[in-house]
Amino acid sequence: MAVLLSQINGELNGKLVGQPDLPISGIASLKEATKGCISFISHGRYQHLLKDFKGSALIVSEALQGFVPPEVALIVVDDPYWAYARLTQFWRRAHPRPQGPLIHPSAVIHPDAWLDSDVEVGPLSVIEAGARIGAGTRILARVTVMADVIMGKRCVLHPGVVVGADGFGFAQHESEWVKIEQLGNVVLGNDVELGANTCVDRAALGSTTLCDGVKIDNLVQIGHNVHIGPHTAMAGCVGVAGSARIGARCTFGGGAIVLGHLEVADDVHVSAASVVTKSIKSAGQYSGLFPLDDNQSWEKNAASLKQLHALRERIKSLESQFQKKASP
Amino acid sequence: MAVLLSQINGELNGKLVGQPDLPISGIASLKEATKGCISFISHGRYQHLLKDFKGSALIVSEALQGFVPPEVALIVVDDPYWAYARLTQFWRRAHPRPQGPLIHPSAVIHPDAWLDSDVEVGPLSVIEAGARIGAGTRILARVTVMADVIMGKRCVLHPGVVVGADGFGFAQHESEWVKIEQLGNVVLGNDVELGANTCVDRAALGSTTLCDGVKIDNLVQIGHNVHIGPHTAMAGCVGVAGSARIGARCTFGGGAIVLGHLEVADDVHVSAASVVTKSIKSAGQYSGLFPLDDNQSWEKNAASLKQLHALRERIKSLESQFQKKASP
Amino acid sequence: MAVLLSQINGELNGKLVGQPDLPISGIASLKEATKGCISFISHGRYQHLLKDFKGSALIVSEALQGFVPPEVALIVVDDPYWAYARLTQFWRRAHPRPQGPLIHPSAVIHPDAWLDSDVEVGPLSVIEAGARIGAGTRILARVTVMADVIMGKRCVLHPGVVVGADGFGFAQHESEWVKIEQLGNVVLGNDVELGANTCVDRAALGSTTLCDGVKIDNLVQIGHNVHIGPHTAMAGCVGVAGSARIGARCTFGGGAIVLGHLEVADDVHVSAASVVTKSIKSAGQYSGLFPLDDNQSWEKNAASLKQLHALRERIKSLESQFQKKASP
Repeated sequence: MAVLLSQINGELNGKLVGQPDLPISGIASLKEATKGCISFISHGRYQHLLKDFKGSALIVSEALQGFVPPEVALIVVDDPYWAYARLTQFWRRAHPRPQGPLIHPSAVIHPDAWLDSDVEVGPLSVIEAGARIGAGTRILARVTVMADVIMGKRCVLHPGVVVGADGFGFAQHESEWVKIEQLGNVVLGNDVELGANTCVDRAALGSTTLCDGVKIDNLVQIGHNVHIGPHTAMAGCVGVAGSARIGARCTFGGGAIVLGHLEVADDVHVSAASVVTKSIKSAGQYSGLFPLDDNQSWEKNAASLKQLHALRERIKSLESQFQKKASP
Repeated sequence: MAVLLSQINGELNGKLVGQPDLPISGIASLKEATKGCISFISHGRYQHLLKDFKGSALIVSEALQGFVPPEVALIVVDDPYWAYARLTQFWRRAHPRPQGPLIHPSAVIHPDAWLDSDVEVGPLSVIEAGARIGAGTRILARVTVMADVIMGKRCVLHPGVVVGADGFGFAQHESEWVKIEQLGNVVLGNDVELGANTCVDRAALGSTTLCDGVKIDNLVQIGHNVHIGPHTAMAGCVGVAGSARIGARCTFGGGAIVLGHLEVADDVHVSAASVVTKSIKSAGQYSGLFPLDDNQSWEKNAASLKQLHALRERIKSLESQFQKKASP
Repeated sequence: MAVLLSQINGELNGKLVGQPDLPISGIASLKEATKGCISFISHGRYQHLLKDFKGSALIVSEALQGFVPPEVALIVVDDPYWAYARLTQFWRRAHPRPQGPLIHPSAVIHPDAWLDSDVEVGPLSVIEAGARIGAGTRILARVTVMADVIMGKRCVLHPGVVVGADGFGFAQHESEWVKIEQLGNVVLGNDVELGANTCVDRAALGSTTLCDGVKIDNLVQIGHNVHIGPHTAMAGCVGVAGSARIGARCTFGGGAIVLGHLEVADDVHVSAASVVTKSIKSAGQYSGLFPLDDNQSWEKNAASLKQLHALRERIKSLESQFQKKASP
């Protein structure tokens, strides 16, 4: 079902250049757009794609407006990527998926769980006793929300998510592991999103806490008693060990690992596959990953790396020998 | 239930050396085979195990045939490992597991999903609206196939798989994350296999595509708009970030990470735990992982690594000082 | 519901210093304890927290007993952390969660599966044909136990666990992957615990084996034919490739990777995010991870790392030139 360009602009509050009643039948990327499609350009590095643009309308910044072929209708905005995000939300509302009952009859919800208004629970999900779920939260198919988990409003939990499983807590006694019952819970703020098959463990004592606006991708592990500040985002396959305390507005690239019992300041950005082994006290970008190389070069360099400390000593020795010779 | 050696050879099209009506009661590895078992030897490095072989029959290449004790019956083939693969398939057909209905009654299948003939859907799996599933595909227990996902023939989805969850797409606006609705879908070709708890995200726009014959192990994350060429295989715990475009016949070792928006050529092999940070333009083996060491040595070398660039400068300086002294 | 301090001490067999009928209403950490709470101190490094302790009772070692404010009641024990573990178990028994039937009616259990006495099966879990499950084992919500899996007594399987999915086995033939049917099974000993969304694959032939007391955290991948010795523990996001043989009482930090077909001795400890690429023959701590750095320093050092072998040659050359000059 097509919508009119003017309707779209009504959502985005941009400046419409072109025919307001142009029918828009789809959203597509710059490269894949065809007649009837609207697209967006978010960065100057895609400018070279504009001359071959086949779509009918474009969301664009003032700076790039001049590079668009004249036959293309425009919505000119300050932040085209943000406008695109809002466009997708409008599009979803205008093209809703077939909707069954909010609570799917196959979901298993304990009578002692409490769900606020408009909570969605997908097929074959489980909500255990004592869980409390805020208004407008969407729990999709095959999710487990365990006992006493508390979550705010407008959260989204994708399929396979497990919130509130036991943290990994054992005391070692005579070479065996003695279970520490995990007596705490999990608290999610508002607008938290958890990706498919992601796990957030309950606290040993107290709470594991994800503050408002935290966004977590798929297959991420959040250990017990972790605290994640507002609006921090983590890409897929990240692991955060127990009792780590992570600041606000941080980002973690895919596969990053954060060790336990440490602190990460606000506005820290950790690159993919990097390992946080100590507390990070100031904002910035941090990295630590072995650069990829052809296998043969890697083998040579990796072998040398195991002697790096010895090489450093040899350099030191050369320097002091040279020094001695140089001085009379 | 035993099968005759001649029946097995009928499947493998080898040269049978020994008694055709020898009853074979099981398949076992070279080391664990006992009387009645058939085994296989796929590589010369296992030749030393032949003299103690306790089984009754062996799949072997012509080259290694001479090292097998004379009392062992043989099926001589060009590629014993491939023959072993076909033998396991024959064995499974000859010893089928107890079979219930193709569509388990506890599965939740939306009436607007379309399943071709002979599609299997295991207990407690969910198939959402608009999904289209090709003939002979097996969806095992507790799988989620989300809206509008398309898959080909003879795919296998193991328990816990989630295909078509939202990609991780947000636009940052005033320090908060604004959801980009993921309007695309996922397309799997024929003969695609996805391991337990693996996730393949739907595209933001367009499709996330896994071509024919792609094999993915457990706990792998495939981001939105990724494209994986035919017959590429990925071991467990791999993560592929959004919009990466991966060629045909590649392999990725366990725990490898591929960053987003890059290209990997055909026939590229990435070692375990290595991180692809840039496009790879030619076939070959690539690696990038820190070599394991005893902790004390690692600590010294890791500390030196943080000064490596400075060490390089010191070497350069030594070289130039030496040069100066050497030249008159 | 409060319990008396004397009841707690009855469980822990410590020395009670203070009022035996002191009512204890909760367990809390040293920092978060309030009136009515009992806490514990497991290490001298937390001693500085004692002076501000707000709780009513403390589990403490004899060595630290003297640093506790006099108004706090004490339970003096040899190993406070182990005592705390047992306290949590007592607390859980004294405050049981609302209990439904042991086998939730929504679970799908094949009639050919065999469950010993007191086995718990949570909502929406699947137990396939031929599985055998020992007494007192707890299978929580949304778990899959596949055909022919055998497990011992008192195991705990958290939500999303998949035990017995196919191992990742394919033979390459003319650039395509031919499925090797996985004909083996999985055997878990007694007291094995598997974290949320963890996967343990069935063997190709024979068994994948986790011995008594093995503890596995969330999102861990155990490949086919792996053998893990008694009381070994693995933190989240670990991956173990096929046929690895791991000893007893080992520990693996989060995100560690173990390659296939290798052996790890007893009492080996592998640091987080480290990759075991070769067999480890003796006990000890092993590490191999790139140290985190600010991004700019990392970039310089990583670039130099790709020339490390060449740098080593340059040092060697400097040494020999120097040697020549030094000798007459």
